[in-house]
Amino acid sequence: LRRPRAREVGISFGVLPPGPRNMISDVAGVRVGHTTLVRGSGPLKEGFGPVRTGVTVIVPHEGNLYRRPVKASYFDLNGCGGLVGALQIREFGMIDTPIGLTNTMSMGVVADALVKHVLRANPNAAKDQDAVIPVVSECDDSFLNDSRGMHVLGEHVHAALERVTVAVEEGAVGAGTGMSCYEFKGGIGTSSRIVETPAGRHTLGTLVLSNHGEREELVVLGVPVGRLLGPPTRRRREQGSIVMVVATDAPVSDRQLQRLARRAPLGLARTGACSHSGSGDIVIAFSTANVHDRMGDEPIQTDHFMRDRDLDHLFRATVDSTEESIVNSLFKADTTEGRDGNVSHGLPLDETIELLKEHKCLG
Amino acid sequence: LRRPRAREVGISFGVLPPGPRNMISDVAGVRVGHTTLVRGSGPLKEGFGPVRTGVTVIVPHEGNLYRRPVKASYFDLNGCGGLVGALQIREFGMIDTPIGLTNTMSMGVVADALVKHVLRANPNAAKDQDAVIPVVSECDDSFLNDSRGMHVLGEHVHAALERVTVAVEEGAVGAGTGMSCYEFKGGIGTSSRIVETPAGRHTLGTLVLSNHGEREELVVLGVPVGRLLGPPTRRRREQGSIVMVVATDAPVSDRQLQRLARRAPLGLARTGACSHSGSGDIVIAFSTANVHDRMGDEPIQTDHFMRDRDLDHLFRATVDSTEESIVNSLFKADTTEGRDGNVSHGLPLDETIELLKEHKCLG
Amino acid sequence: LRRPRAREVGISFGVLPPGPRNMISDVAGVRVGHTTLVRGSGPLKEGFGPVRTGVTVIVPHEGNLYRRPVKASYFDLNGCGGLVGALQIREFGMIDTPIGLTNTMSMGVVADALVKHVLRANPNAAKDQDAVIPVVSECDDSFLNDSRGMHVLGEHVHAALERVTVAVEEGAVGAGTGMSCYEFKGGIGTSSRIVETPAGRHTLGTLVLSNHGEREELVVLGVPVGRLLGPPTRRRREQGSIVMVVATDAPVSDRQLQRLARRAPLGLARTGACSHSGSGDIVIAFSTANVHDRMGDEPIQTDHFMRDRDLDHLFRATVDSTEESIVNSLFKADTTEGRDGNVSHGLPLDETIELLKEHKCLG
Amino acid sequence: LRRPRAREVGISFGVLPPGPRNMISDVAGVRVGHTTLVRGSGPLKEGFGPVRTGVTVIVPHEGNLYRRPVKASYFDLNGCGGLVGALQIREFGMIDTPIGLTNTMSMGVVADALVKHVLRANPNAAKDQDAVIPVVSECDDSFLNDSRGMHVLGEHVHAALERVTVAVEEGAVGAGTGMSCYEFKGGIGTSSRIVETPAGRHTLGTLVLSNHGEREELVVLGVPVGRLLGPPTRRRREQGSIVMVVATDAPVSDRQLQRLARRAPLGLARTGACSHSGSGDIVIAFSTANVHDRMGDEPIQTDHFMRDRDLDHLFRATVDSTEESIVNSLFKADTTEGRDGNVSHGLPLDETIELLKEHKCLG
Repeated sequence: LRRPRAREVGISFGVLPPGPRNMISDVAGVRVGHTTLVRGSGPLKEGFGPVRTGVTVIVPHEGNLYRRPVKASYFDLNGCGGLVGALQIREFGMIDTPIGLTNTMSMGVVADALVKHVLRANPNAAKDQDAVIPVVSECDDSFLNDSRGMHVLGEHVHAALERVTVAVEEGAVGAGTGMSCYEFKGGIGTSSRIVETPAGRHTLGTLVLSNHGEREELVVLGVPVGRLLGPPTRRRREQGSIVMVVATDAPVSDRQLQRLARRAPLGLARTGACSHSGSGDIVIAFSTANVHDRMGDEPIQTDHFMRDRDLDHLFRATVDSTEESIVNSLFKADTTEGRDGNVSHGLPLDETIELLKEHKCLG
Repeated sequence: LRRPRAREVGISFGVLPPGPRNMISDVAGVRVGHTTLVRGSGPLKEGFGPVRTGVTVIVPHEGNLYRRPVKASYFDLNGCGGLVGALQIREFGMIDTPIGLTNTMSMGVVADALVKHVLRANPNAAKDQDAVIPVVSECDDSFLNDSRGMHVLGEHVHAALERVTVAVEEGAVGAGTGMSCYEFKGGIGTSSRIVETPAGRHTLGTLVLSNHGEREELVVLGVPVGRLLGPPTRRRREQGSIVMVVATDAPVSDRQLQRLARRAPLGLARTGACSHSGSGDIVIAFSTANVHDRMGDEPIQTDHFMRDRDLDHLFRATVDSTEESIVNSLFKADTTEGRDGNVSHGLPLDETIELLKEHKCLG
Repeated sequence: LRRPRAREVGISFGVLPPGPRNMISDVAGVRVGHTTLVRGSGPLKEGFGPVRTGVTVIVPHEGNLYRRPVKASYFDLNGCGGLVGALQIREFGMIDTPIGLTNTMSMGVVADALVKHVLRANPNAAKDQDAVIPVVSECDDSFLNDSRGMHVLGEHVHAALERVTVAVEEGAVGAGTGMSCYEFKGGIGTSSRIVETPAGRHTLGTLVLSNHGEREELVVLGVPVGRLLGPPTRRRREQGSIVMVVATDAPVSDRQLQRLARRAPLGLARTGACSHSGSGDIVIAFSTANVHDRMGDEPIQTDHFMRDRDLDHLFRATVDSTEESIVNSLFKADTTEGRDGNVSHGLPLDETIELLKEHKCLG
Repeated sequence: LRRPRAREVGISFGVLPPGPRNMISDVAGVRVGHTTLVRGSGPLKEGFGPVRTGVTVIVPHEGNLYRRPVKASYFDLNGCGGLVGALQIREFGMIDTPIGLTNTMSMGVVADALVKHVLRANPNAAKDQDAVIPVVSECDDSFLNDSRGMHVLGEHVHAALERVTVAVEEGAVGAGTGMSCYEFKGGIGTSSRIVETPAGRHTLGTLVLSNHGEREELVVLGVPVGRLLGPPTRRRREQGSIVMVVATDAPVSDRQLQRLARRAPLGLARTGACSHSGSGDIVIAFSTANVHDRMGDEPIQTDHFMRDRDLDHLFRATVDSTEESIVNSLFKADTTEGRDGNVSHGLPLDETIELLKEHKCLG
């Protein structure tokens, strides 16, 4: 049975309209690819499984990203997590490789594979041009996955890169395969918004890898759904994390993207999060506007930026779209049994919808 | 007619119990003083009024703060605001003067008065000891106040310092006199929580100077109260700001206080904020534990800190108490008419309570 | 007897040529004004003197700065110092008021006076436009000055603003009146460089308020001049600080200005500094390129930026010019006797030049 | 012929005495291991060589680092470089895995190998305990090495870990095998200082992986040696980088380690650097004092910290020892020929010493 997205059952977040797909891929050029690894069941046998993990890659545009980086910024609400490439994002205000998401222990493998991917596409990189530092972030899927077994391989990254598409799969797929969100099954969720600003009509999309929170904390549209649905049968030990990716075609600088990145946690907060100590809560934001060939001959680059005072439209879109992405990750993820009989239950949709109706949050 | 606090009408935020006063002053030693300036009415005559402004001071403990600083940190979700002393807070992880809050243009006067206050109490400061850099933050009350008239004087700061008390007044008082929150009357609000951790029983309190947001954004307990109550009759131009102060007696380091400070905006988010571009959203956090005489002879200082993994209790308390402080600032603030007939209406409590009941958020 | 600048006696720093004045004012539009306060002598009588202090203001361009801010950034190598306006500089990547420098305890007064200055020039500021947050930094001149007496007044700031000029006075003037550098007399120093880059010919200038270091640390052109000249007769207690201002007409973003700001301490290091714990070592950098009317109607602003890889020219200029500015502050500052017979001796130029010759650093 | 260290030919940096080995390993418990990869010569054949690269690991103490992390901080003067683990270092103020150094493109492989190393030693990590995020930094050795060939393997990391020793090899070894410093052969250099503070006698050691700078910039003891020795025969294209590691047994907090980290670039500056745009200049600092079992039952941890005002001793030691480490990396590294006939010449020691004598910098 196919699980619906939040908006399909009539839930809306804020007043801004979503884009045509209501996905991060509504930002022209942005595509997402997953490799999902599911093998075995039963007790954990390190190195053998059960395997419930994967890789998700986000490609900001269709050109040569290494030559034509996108302006970017990151913000870590809570730095209990990894972000390979963090220093370079901040120093140059840009991202020049695909963004890889995976489980914590596989960050090195995914970084390595992304470097190889960029080298292949750029025969002069690290020879007559700069070296390559990829962007990779992670959450910990040890509750369901044999994460010590380190089952993600370079080929899985390459497969995800080959499969990038605008039709983003959500739920227990890719890097989200083994993740849990508020102790329900979580993973990948996405959403988007269209904003009308004095600078024009722009699209902003978000994608989350959700793996954070305790059951009692979950709030949907202000309703304490987690508390009302009751505690899980088995508590997971690790405290999870969440990676939030914000993409836009609005003409914003790296400084303005930092401002966007700082708003994503406000959407996270609306779902009940208080950002646990062990939760790496990381935001990566990029814009597909103002892309230049950095190896070109032009000594002066011309950028076109919105005024800061008009960013409020994008701030609102970031908050609402992040909130919706998290709820989508819950709506779309099916119950998953992993190692040692650990089960992450899909959010019970009928009961959830009933609760929202009782609280007058749904038509 | 005395307006009630949120909890008096049955509203509670989260499951943690508040302290005996449900105020920042539940943290032993913390006291707050206000000077409220209300003079004149009618059209703005620069330098003459109407005056709707003031000063609020927060004193972290009863001893000599300059000799015995408290560990501290700050976080600016949005840096469109002033925080005199910011660099020193970060460099030394401490605060060694009272914290002054006022209107934007009066930051200099309040800083100056706080320096004089510290010099008086410390005859060797800036002679045989270090110079004095005070801590001052601000919001912009120009919607109601003749803020260009700069009516705050040094004597008002000294008066506030003389009046510090554990019985914190809320609403349109002190620095909050001319502030508006979600385009209702806002100002000072406070709250507290008691937390039981493996490291013992601790108190965490918060105080806000609320002056942010647009009417339509206001959310109380998940209910979109602002939208349901309808738009204001006159829009204010400035976008406001919010200063959030977090105090605790829990034994936490400046690094851990940074972690607390980063959680306060999650409470702010629950009231509907998306942190407008022009809103200086600033958090100051301090702990009254581990206070040492920094001019003493002891070359080694012994600190006792909680484990990071036990901070989750304090994170939850920070989020919930910040949310409640903001709602208290709205509940306690009476309708105020200021310059040029601009009116900031007190949140209509009966209608608000009715809306919460309709949404099953109140008994 | 007029003391020479370093370059007048044949000392040069690096290979890049200085601008025509070898001053920060070689950057077109940049002007500097001082108010110097010298009154009384003998024992300290708090509130009466002796007074050895002042104010220096730096005005980035000749237009309405509040409407047409300059792109800016700051970096604090050591945050034991004050920088009013720090959060706003970072949030918006700009400066929109003159930069005020003074003694530590007078930061509030100078901030207050700068606000009034901006309000006067902008009748709608803090009424229909934003509030005003000024930029002020400081060093501690308590060794010579009755700094507890707080002798700087608002009128001194206004006088400095009225006197701004491209002919920058150096040494014991303005904010530098009571400052000491490596326990010699210090204060104001300035320098500039012309750089040829693929993006064109640009000017970069620096100005320092020097008040840092111990005698033994001073190095000039690699020669340990401080150690060779011997210790001071009376040690000052306070550890000083240094404010470094970097101005350029090169088209650089706020992010790129952050990069420039981080290089100024490398010039400081060449003079022997190790940035003492009690020394507030702060850099403010701005660019006069890409200035827009922020209250204009244009929803999109067009900026022209150099490529990052071409910044090396500016980095070199920043390091060299900062070094020269510090040495100029020493060369130009005369012996000054202050409170309680404390004397800050001017760097003995003949002996210094002799030492440089011995080490083959001079013709 | 064995090349001497700087101190062996009579060069000293500053007045503080070095430790017995004048190495980072003078800090008790700190050990360093290298794996050096040198294979082939002649034209570059991607994937085949010539190989001039390696891995260096720094192990902060002899116990279980994952259970007993060291307090730590990092500072990136210039973030054009990678630092896996950066966010976690900042969030928790600690390092819990060995520090790996390698070439840029091999960061992922080294991260992966370090994770496996920690998992092996900690059977419950990422099962009942937290996941593992390693610390890895890098420089780009593409001038000499077939860096696109990615010749570093996990086994090389494990071999380096098995070989850790207090007798640190310097020069063209480990991660330094293919690095160049001021266009001479560079690589690994180390040094240490003993400091007497009111808090006791402490050791501070530094290790650098030097790969930065242009020939003309090199300064030794204030003498412009690079300019005087003349330009290289073939310019390298990449701009290099430098990783600086600071270790101490002094009782300092993560905040105080941040302060130490910010001083290392002042030592770098003394060797002539202006931190090029393409140079990732990164400092990692840790203290072996105040180490606790973070999985223990004790809810309160007791830390003993020095006063900030006594840090000046450590600041001086950091600056001097960093400078000496860089010069040692030059003194110890032999001429190396790499891919495509690219040669990085060892610093000509006789001429260098002669120049220092001429400038009266050597006995």
